[in-house]
Amino acid sequence: GKREPEHYGTTTAAALDELMLAEAARRGVELDIRYTNVEGEAITWIYDAVTRGVDGLLMNPAGFSHAGYALRDCLKAVRGFPYVEIHITNTERRGIKPVTSGEAEGVIAGFGIDSYLLAFDAMMRILARGPSAKG
Amino acid sequence: GKREPEHYGTTTAAALDELMLAEAARRGVELDIRYTNVEGEAITWIYDAVTRGVDGLLMNPAGFSHAGYALRDCLKAVRGFPYVEIHITNTERRGIKPVTSGEAEGVIAGFGIDSYLLAFDAMMRILARGPSAKG
Amino acid sequence: GKREPEHYGTTTAAALDELMLAEAARRGVELDIRYTNVEGEAITWIYDAVTRGVDGLLMNPAGFSHAGYALRDCLKAVRGFPYVEIHITNTERRGIKPVTSGEAEGVIAGFGIDSYLLAFDAMMRILARGPSAKG
Amino acid sequence: GKREPEHYGTTTAAALDELMLAEAARRGVELDIRYTNVEGEAITWIYDAVTRGVDGLLMNPAGFSHAGYALRDCLKAVRGFPYVEIHITNTERRGIKPVTSGEAEGVIAGFGIDSYLLAFDAMMRILARGPSAKG
Amino acid sequence: GKREPEHYGTTTAAALDELMLAEAARRGVELDIRYTNVEGEAITWIYDAVTRGVDGLLMNPAGFSHAGYALRDCLKAVRGFPYVEIHITNTERRGIKPVTSGEAEGVIAGFGIDSYLLAFDAMMRILARGPSAKG
Amino acid sequence: GKREPEHYGTTTAAALDELMLAEAARRGVELDIRYTNVEGEAITWIYDAVTRGVDGLLMNPAGFSHAGYALRDCLKAVRGFPYVEIHITNTERRGIKPVTSGEAEGVIAGFGIDSYLLAFDAMMRILARGPSAKG
Amino acid sequence: GKREPEHYGTTTAAALDELMLAEAARRGVELDIRYTNVEGEAITWIYDAVTRGVDGLLMNPAGFSHAGYALRDCLKAVRGFPYVEIHITNTERRGIKPVTSGEAEGVIAGFGIDSYLLAFDAMMRILARGPSAKG
Amino acid sequence: GKREPEHYGTTTAAALDELMLAEAARRGVELDIRYTNVEGEAITWIYDAVTRGVDGLLMNPAGFSHAGYALRDCLKAVRGFPYVEIHITNTERRGIKPVTSGEAEGVIAGFGIDSYLLAFDAMMRILARGPSAKG
Amino acid sequence: GKREPEHYGTTTAAALDELMLAEAARRGVELDIRYTNVEGEAITWIYDAVTRGVDGLLMNPAGFSHAGYALRDCLKAVRGFPYVEIHITNTERRGIKPVTSGEAEGVIAGFGIDSYLLAFDAMMRILARGPSAKG
Amino acid sequence: GKREPEHYGTTTAAALDELMLAEAARRGVELDIRYTNVEGEAITWIYDAVTRGVDGLLMNPAGFSHAGYALRDCLKAVRGFPYVEIHITNTERRGIKPVTSGEAEGVIAGFGIDSYLLAFDAMMRILARGPSAKG
Amino acid sequence: GKREPEHYGTTTAAALDELMLAEAARRGVELDIRYTNVEGEAITWIYDAVTRGVDGLLMNPAGFSHAGYALRDCLKAVRGFPYVEIHITNTERRGIKPVTSGEAEGVIAGFGIDSYLLAFDAMMRILARGPSAKG
Amino acid sequence: GKREPEHYGTTTAAALDELMLAEAARRGVELDIRYTNVEGEAITWIYDAVTRGVDGLLMNPAGFSHAGYALRDCLKAVRGFPYVEIHITNTERRGIKPVTSGEAEGVIAGFGIDSYLLAFDAMMRILARGPSAKG
Repeated sequence: GKREPEHYGTTTAAALDELMLAEAARRGVELDIRYTNVEGEAITWIYDAVTRGVDGLLMNPAGFSHAGYALRDCLKAVRGFPYVEIHITNTERRGIKPVTSGEAEGVIAGFGIDSYLLAFDAMMRILARGPSAKG
Repeated sequence: GKREPEHYGTTTAAALDELMLAEAARRGVELDIRYTNVEGEAITWIYDAVTRGVDGLLMNPAGFSHAGYALRDCLKAVRGFPYVEIHITNTERRGIKPVTSGEAEGVIAGFGIDSYLLAFDAMMRILARGPSAKG
Repeated sequence: GKREPEHYGTTTAAALDELMLAEAARRGVELDIRYTNVEGEAITWIYDAVTRGVDGLLMNPAGFSHAGYALRDCLKAVRGFPYVEIHITNTERRGIKPVTSGEAEGVIAGFGIDSYLLAFDAMMRILARGPSAKG
Repeated sequence: GKREPEHYGTTTAAALDELMLAEAARRGVELDIRYTNVEGEAITWIYDAVTRGVDGLLMNPAGFSHAGYALRDCLKAVRGFPYVEIHITNTERRGIKPVTSGEAEGVIAGFGIDSYLLAFDAMMRILARGPSAKG
Repeated sequence: GKREPEHYGTTTAAALDELMLAEAARRGVELDIRYTNVEGEAITWIYDAVTRGVDGLLMNPAGFSHAGYALRDCLKAVRGFPYVEIHITNTERRGIKPVTSGEAEGVIAGFGIDSYLLAFDAMMRILARGPSAKG
Repeated sequence: GKREPEHYGTTTAAALDELMLAEAARRGVELDIRYTNVEGEAITWIYDAVTRGVDGLLMNPAGFSHAGYALRDCLKAVRGFPYVEIHITNTERRGIKPVTSGEAEGVIAGFGIDSYLLAFDAMMRILARGPSAKG
Repeated sequence: GKREPEHYGTTTAAALDELMLAEAARRGVELDIRYTNVEGEAITWIYDAVTRGVDGLLMNPAGFSHAGYALRDCLKAVRGFPYVEIHITNTERRGIKPVTSGEAEGVIAGFGIDSYLLAFDAMMRILARGPSAKG
Repeated sequence: GKREPEHYGTTTAAALDELMLAEAARRGVELDIRYTNVEGEAITWIYDAVTRGVDGLLMNPAGFSHAGYALRDCLKAVRGFPYVEIHITNTERRGIKPVTSGEAEGVIAGFGIDSYLLAFDAMMRILARGPSAKG
Repeated sequence: GKREPEHYGTTTAAALDELMLAEAARRGVELDIRYTNVEGEAITWIYDAVTRGVDGLLMNPAGFSHAGYALRDCLKAVRGFPYVEIHITNTERRGIKPVTSGEAEGVIAGFGIDSYLLAFDAMMRILARGPSAKG
Repeated sequence: GKREPEHYGTTTAAALDELMLAEAARRGVELDIRYTNVEGEAITWIYDAVTRGVDGLLMNPAGFSHAGYALRDCLKAVRGFPYVEIHITNTERRGIKPVTSGEAEGVIAGFGIDSYLLAFDAMMRILARGPSAKG
Repeated sequence: GKREPEHYGTTTAAALDELMLAEAARRGVELDIRYTNVEGEAITWIYDAVTRGVDGLLMNPAGFSHAGYALRDCLKAVRGFPYVEIHITNTERRGIKPVTSGEAEGVIAGFGIDSYLLAFDAMMRILARGPSAKG
Repeated sequence: GKREPEHYGTTTAAALDELMLAEAARRGVELDIRYTNVEGEAITWIYDAVTRGVDGLLMNPAGFSHAGYALRDCLKAVRGFPYVEIHITNTERRGIKPVTSGEAEGVIAGFGIDSYLLAFDAMMRILARGPSAKG
């Protein structure tokens, strides 16, 4: 299972959920999708996921990209727990340098909704490779 | 067809070539792989590719990430020509902000050799979507 | 109706509420006053207000002035929804450059409690002018 | 009485003058409107106004916003003389940080021509409150 | 009584609580320990504590060290309410400059779990000295 | 034994010496107090102390906080020799970032003369824990 | 006609005037040469020239290069009115980045007195091309 | 003769004039005192003074200290014409770095009205030494 | 003769060549036009040109404007060899500060294709003046 | 009496000493001249002078201008003890911003050896005025 | 054998080659001297040298000192391959901080042509010591 | 003769002394080795050495590398007195930019103890060349 604490416009969030759940079903894995505007809530969810033995995290940090230092510290504290960072847009082109990116296994940015599907694939490859040793 | 002006250690470059060519064969597309240490040569190849009607560019800018401004200007000049940027490592974690990233459709970084396969998939999705309107 | 996610000392908050509600009554508009210390809660309220068809937002970002980037992203996402930013003190004199100011229709700062009444008037003028085209 | 050393396109300056003079008449106060492109002239006017016992200053520093340090020093020297700063546009959105803002009682920015009327109202409230103690 | 809005790994938090509660018992004072990942919740607790007449605050700002400006503004607003800042590690060595430190009576950093006991002692000394006049 | 190369006003230095020597007597340890205005002299004392087998160093770097890079290099060279840094005032509030802090086991700042007693206690706890492995 | 608000040593100013007026006569265009040390006067002249239907502006901003922000704002306000910036010396070599350059059609710098003649030619080419659409 | 383009409060300017004129009478030199708020006017006066053969310049740049780059360029252009810069306050303590200081023979700052008398003496010593070769 | 190591879109490069060769024919000078994407090749050409006794260099550094430090060092090494820098666009407006500009006799920027013709004229004037003494 | 912890070339130091001692004799005051290359020694002398009731300090900080932060802290600690800072050269022109200047009553820079005599005069005027209240 | 990708004026390059080849003959080692203006060519040579089992690299990065990041990445990739960096001039005095220096075993700068001979000696000492463990 | 104001661990300093004295004996020159932790003492030694007619200075500035501005000023004052700077480690790799390097004839860094022997050789070559003209 995975989670995505993420914010969307009301019309497309449902469609994205459906797309990702279909992909999860196709791959036979469990996916737990979550949204929050409260950074601390995302942090609590992540610690919780690690405690419950979740396999990894797909996350679009969205508005937390700019000053989500507490979220970054949380991700740093759970190093070893695979995290793939997703951005719909190419953050470099927009001059954004997400503070959480450095804690990810890898980053996928700029492919629109496809970023989510590519990240799903990336996570499956990471889990297939076994435990990583992040430097 | 695509090209990859990229530099590797002698042992793994052959393996990566084979992997990518196999993927190209599987997908039924033509892939043209190139390596160079000379930034201007990469630029010439890119202008050439656009002239010849190549569909897109997968590139790991490697050593050109730091000061490849001429390469960046070339990519800016061919906006509309899809470019997916590849990094084996998570550049954010290493404190690198590649100067070419802002000209890419999207960036995939940190998944080791899998970054290439994910980028291949990303390019296929971009080409399937049709012409993009990069902002 | 409008809302004000804002924090005050316990003694003056009630008085300010009363003043603003009296002004709303005088002008015959509905005003919904809210306080929160949680940035994500303010964000949720704003998205909610847009969904419910509220006409505009008067807000003193207070403690969120310094690093409220998620709040700023939310305001950017609802461009077209009129927002007037209020500061009791002259933020420039105190060397504060609120991160949310750039997303406001306009800013009123430094007039003490009068800043709220001036902002109320400013919002009424904006609503009377009809939809704005923020650049 | 008040003054406004300000520059406008020839067509709208007259209209703005009329609007402000009408407001002054409605409120029964005297308003002295002035325009200049010469920073030193604005400074001389301000010292003069203080000497003559003018009650306060409404000013749109316009082109002096960027490097009007001498104007700022003048405003600092006459602390106690109420000054309300006016900007037609939201200066924060345009990345401008006027050097004079810190010397104002308060700032009103972004409401177009309404910024002038709101500033007029703000000045009347300041004068009604009696002498301020700027920190 | 005192409070510690702080986050720890699940195994050591209980031990630290026990240690601090024992120290409180030994000294005959009441200690109220709290944890939260939500900055706004910590702020609400602090305003609440001041209202309830709590004597002082021991806090490890942890993840809020980097961008906890709203928390800092809250501490600034309750100047006169003694606050001792605790860090398990030497923040200077790690290149961290907590934004809340300037609002503390004093800071104790780098002594591991002993930082908590030293902070407890420091707070008792502050309370014994009587009201401070922070500059 | 410990040393404190530190400068004070002539009236309080004697009182502080007495306080610290009494504390040393109470704890049954030997304390060697030294003052100097010459950075190089402090460095010579520290190398000397390490050679003579002194257990640790309590130091208020005072005027050397700003540019005491040679002192910092000396402390770096004797890593493993416990050093506790003392500041009478909260250096963060005064915008001072002592260059030596990163070389300390820990830092205690802002508790006035109590900072010395807390530091004494901290050093005793460090020595009781045995050799540290500073990262 | 054109104008040149510019300052020179008394001996060469006359010679330069003669040279430029001869060039104007040769080309059959009217040239109006002006000098001022007062930035606001230059601004007034420019607004005036636009009102009077002057075709374009050749200007050596000289001492206004460093902080002539009001002059720059004026030039920005009259976009569409062709402006060619002249510098006798190569400003880049002297580490000067004139604040007005960004508002010019083009810049000619470093050719001594010839810079004026080249600028004259450049303006004639601009006027021959018809209205420009500056980006 | 000398000049002082300088601004003062109306009450003390007359007294300062008298003091300086008395000093000039005592030393048997001619002193020409001038005040202006317009930077370009000061520049014109300086060029004029050089043309008329004035011996030197005593100037308190006051409000032009911050961005008087055109004034600085003028002083640079008349190198060889002795200029002594005067500041009533210690500009360093106030964090001001006057842009004109580098063009002065020397600077006298912080001695209140005495700064003027000391500057007068300094100029007499410079003139007595004969032509300087400023580096 | 002159050379222009420069890159253009395939359609306009031929037209520009023709224009420049026609101008060279009209003026009776020899012009050698070259294009390269490889910075080192441009450097080799320049050293070569100096050895062969070429009279001067017209160059649009294009993509080398950003980080062409080796090209700049080459130009610095051949000081005395006249170099006129050409930019089609106004580089200041685009926020570009070419690293090579400081080594040019002069710079012409922003006049489109006319920049080349103006530069040709500027070079002829430089050569007519005889050897320059660049400072 | 006064002191001057200062370093000179061996030939001119004696002459300067003689000049200053003659001036002291003429004015009937006692002058104590000292030289040191050791910052801490200068600090000790200053604390000593305050203890002994010396009236003021004339000092050329010379090599301590760049990083004499301990010296600056010492001067800050003895505020109320008049200090006049002397520089032989105009430090602004050389791009030096002495760290001690902000602690001086006033600064005299750029008049060569005359700087010492002007400083002597300045100190006499300060002592004649009575105790200062430095802000 | 060693190589030196380096650029010199045509007259001295031959003499330097002779000097270095004579030194190589005297020491009985093989030396391969190379020059290039193309950074990528230098990179290719270095990878080649490592593949061929060359013992070490003496290099003067010259024009690549400023932005030779690709060259630096290459040197980083072959850590363990001894590299001694040579500069004819003292780069610190000229304000240059070569980007490649951090990848060298050591740096020798400022001794003119002797820098090459000293570097030759340094390399022989490194090779005599056996494999280094660069930190 | 030469001197080395330098600090080492007690065990290796003696060995280094012996090595250098042996080298001096072999070359038939006199070498005077000195160590100090006091920057001012090093300065006094250098002025002294120049006065006594010593031929040159080999120095490892060690801890003075970071803020030894007074030492740098001393070296600047004795320009013409040959100085070779020694660093055991490659300072660039450690991110250190010694403030004294710009005053050296040349710098040798990164070769461990061999740095001293190479520096000895470099000094002999400098002295053999005769007086240098440092730029």
